[in-house]
Amino acid sequence: MTPPPPVRRTTVGIIGGGPAGLLLARLLHRSGIDCAVLESRDRGYVERRQRAGILEQGTVDVLRGCGAGARLDREGLVHDGIELRFAGRSHRLDFPALTGGRRVTVYAQTEVVKDLIALQLADGAPLLFGAEALTVEGADGDRPAVHYRYQGRVHTLDCDYVVGCDGFHGVVRRAVPEGARRTYERGYPYSWLGVLADVPPSADELIYAHSPRGFALFSMRSPTVSRLYLQVPNGTDPADWPDDRVWDELETRAAVDPATGAAPWKLARGPITAKSVLPMRSSVTEPMRYGRVLLAGDAAHIVPPTGAKGLNLAAADVTVLARALTHLHTTGSTELLDAYSATCLRRVWRAEHFSAFMTTTLHTAPDQSPFDTRLQLAQLDRIATAPHAAAELAENYTGLPLPAVPAECSSR
Amino acid sequence: MTPPPPVRRTTVGIIGGGPAGLLLARLLHRSGIDCAVLESRDRGYVERRQRAGILEQGTVDVLRGCGAGARLDREGLVHDGIELRFAGRSHRLDFPALTGGRRVTVYAQTEVVKDLIALQLADGAPLLFGAEALTVEGADGDRPAVHYRYQGRVHTLDCDYVVGCDGFHGVVRRAVPEGARRTYERGYPYSWLGVLADVPPSADELIYAHSPRGFALFSMRSPTVSRLYLQVPNGTDPADWPDDRVWDELETRAAVDPATGAAPWKLARGPITAKSVLPMRSSVTEPMRYGRVLLAGDAAHIVPPTGAKGLNLAAADVTVLARALTHLHTTGSTELLDAYSATCLRRVWRAEHFSAFMTTTLHTAPDQSPFDTRLQLAQLDRIATAPHAAAELAENYTGLPLPAVPAECSSR
Repeated sequence: MTPPPPVRRTTVGIIGGGPAGLLLARLLHRSGIDCAVLESRDRGYVERRQRAGILEQGTVDVLRGCGAGARLDREGLVHDGIELRFAGRSHRLDFPALTGGRRVTVYAQTEVVKDLIALQLADGAPLLFGAEALTVEGADGDRPAVHYRYQGRVHTLDCDYVVGCDGFHGVVRRAVPEGARRTYERGYPYSWLGVLADVPPSADELIYAHSPRGFALFSMRSPTVSRLYLQVPNGTDPADWPDDRVWDELETRAAVDPATGAAPWKLARGPITAKSVLPMRSSVTEPMRYGRVLLAGDAAHIVPPTGAKGLNLAAADVTVLARALTHLHTTGSTELLDAYSATCLRRVWRAEHFSAFMTTTLHTAPDQSPFDTRLQLAQLDRIATAPHAAAELAENYTGLPLPAVPAECSSR
Repeated sequence: MTPPPPVRRTTVGIIGGGPAGLLLARLLHRSGIDCAVLESRDRGYVERRQRAGILEQGTVDVLRGCGAGARLDREGLVHDGIELRFAGRSHRLDFPALTGGRRVTVYAQTEVVKDLIALQLADGAPLLFGAEALTVEGADGDRPAVHYRYQGRVHTLDCDYVVGCDGFHGVVRRAVPEGARRTYERGYPYSWLGVLADVPPSADELIYAHSPRGFALFSMRSPTVSRLYLQVPNGTDPADWPDDRVWDELETRAAVDPATGAAPWKLARGPITAKSVLPMRSSVTEPMRYGRVLLAGDAAHIVPPTGAKGLNLAAADVTVLARALTHLHTTGSTELLDAYSATCLRRVWRAEHFSAFMTTTLHTAPDQSPFDTRLQLAQLDRIATAPHAAAELAENYTGLPLPAVPAECSSR
């Protein structure tokens, strides 16, 4: 296929062709707003990049609403709960019962990205792979421009607005002057060893296991592919984890004690097809707008993966942003755009808190005292026995509703 | 008044005449179980010792049930909620609405102690002031003995059971061999400066204030006496806090921003009659029983005061213990006594978690990052907006119900 020609002018220049950028392009395209997506990597890389896999109901609704729901509805696995394991016990959280009917859907980010790329290439705005954004100029002026390298030459894309969907290390965040942004961060003293395995998951739902040996998470990508994680020390080399060690450790950390009434459980093993170490980090950059430059998804915030919030936050950001740009396009009013940063940040901090809560409740830090461990177990016991504590987790996990559009802006 | 003679033999020897020991003596006396209380301090000291002031509904019920409710019902202030202040905002938690009708009562520990002492001296078991327990012998035998100094001589009290209500530094905890107990602990990098002031409280309910300058708590002992606290660094000398500085700082930390819709608020000032620095600590000793020695209240666990749980946990411990000893007395079965430690510890760890949650959510640690502060504010915002999060706080604050007595033990 001949690569598309460089783009020189658009209304909304979107830097980054991950789920945030692709979904934004889709939403804008359907609102009749001209846009273009520049992605530095090639298509194969983007489509294979292992990331999240849990979609909140709101994310599913947005994907459906922009025409990307067909395969998701066919292949996505709707989950009505998760299982917590701790102190040899097993406790299931029933999401619909706790939240008035909300669920999550297991559908890998790779598949979301494939669906959005296919739609975009079929009938959408320009999407350039191998287009590396170099700098953004004129963020505080009327006509920001993106300089990018594409097919061996540097081009300039003139925009009305530039949206950074290019991750924490992307160029767009750095286009905001240092004095005009502030980044809040926290590191964690552990990482995840993540493996993909060609074996049907050993449980129908995700299992979050607290153990004195560290956290373990049992997830899946499909009915035949398991996605499994082990807490490991920062700096761990995956080579130190031969397959047998991975399986043994997963099994040990999630062991149940029959005396607690937990059902016996056996972990099915299979060929491991990928193995990597993922660091854990929290980060928020404020504000998410500077002049005509806007940040969305990982470019604005990172969550540790324990709460399954990264992809969903990105989807919420671009949904709010698409609504704001559409409102501007239709009415000429910047009211929603002016509120973009504050609207998103409230949800972002909620998700940051929830992600940090899940992370610190389930992992065992290297310097953790026995007192700290007892508090974790007391909190897990509370979630397993007190309806309000369980509902608080379930509401956050299944996702908070998007903020309502102010009445005076909701005419269209 | 002539001091009572030394006691040489009793069924339950209670070491410590604070609220835990006095309430236990009351409950046992009413069940017809012989007991004696040894308190190392004099009566005036015990009656003036400033401690807690918030009684859970369950604690009020127990005090009423043992005849110590008359003045409490007359003078106690029933509170239907607390106020949270953060980020210039004010948010009230309505306890009865959130918990199905539960409330707390403000009635100072000094008053509880006075009421229980008066009852005990009028018609109760022996209560010796100035009786300093020195050692406990034979914890793992059939007949433990307490050696104590009283009126210049050492005496021995032979018991069937010895109960340590003598606090963290008491002798009873140390009577349990080191290999048979484990203490879980956490310190906090801040203390409270507590003041008593002869001025009516400036608000009808307690105010818990998060502020970048540190936590502040506005409480009261009666309609004319305010009890106020400021987070201060560990090692603070109260002499560095002249009265004006205390009042100014209290006012600054609880300031509201009228733009948030918070009602204007002015702090009434008055003569400060006491000023002291209170360290913050969490501690749990397990198990709470060793042979014929039992621990209750601060002898077994310490909570930081932010959750108002210390006195209430002590009351719950001795209520469970009195039930167990009464069951033994009536039926000869040690079943409830055998379950005493596990029964109490579940509630203890819940309260430890809640107290640590309140403490770390509301205080600003010296090494706290701006990210940590944002998470605190996100959590407080969640409590102010999400019913489950608010109810979770309210349920813990107003107190969990005592565990039910197993059906086969509840005949009497």
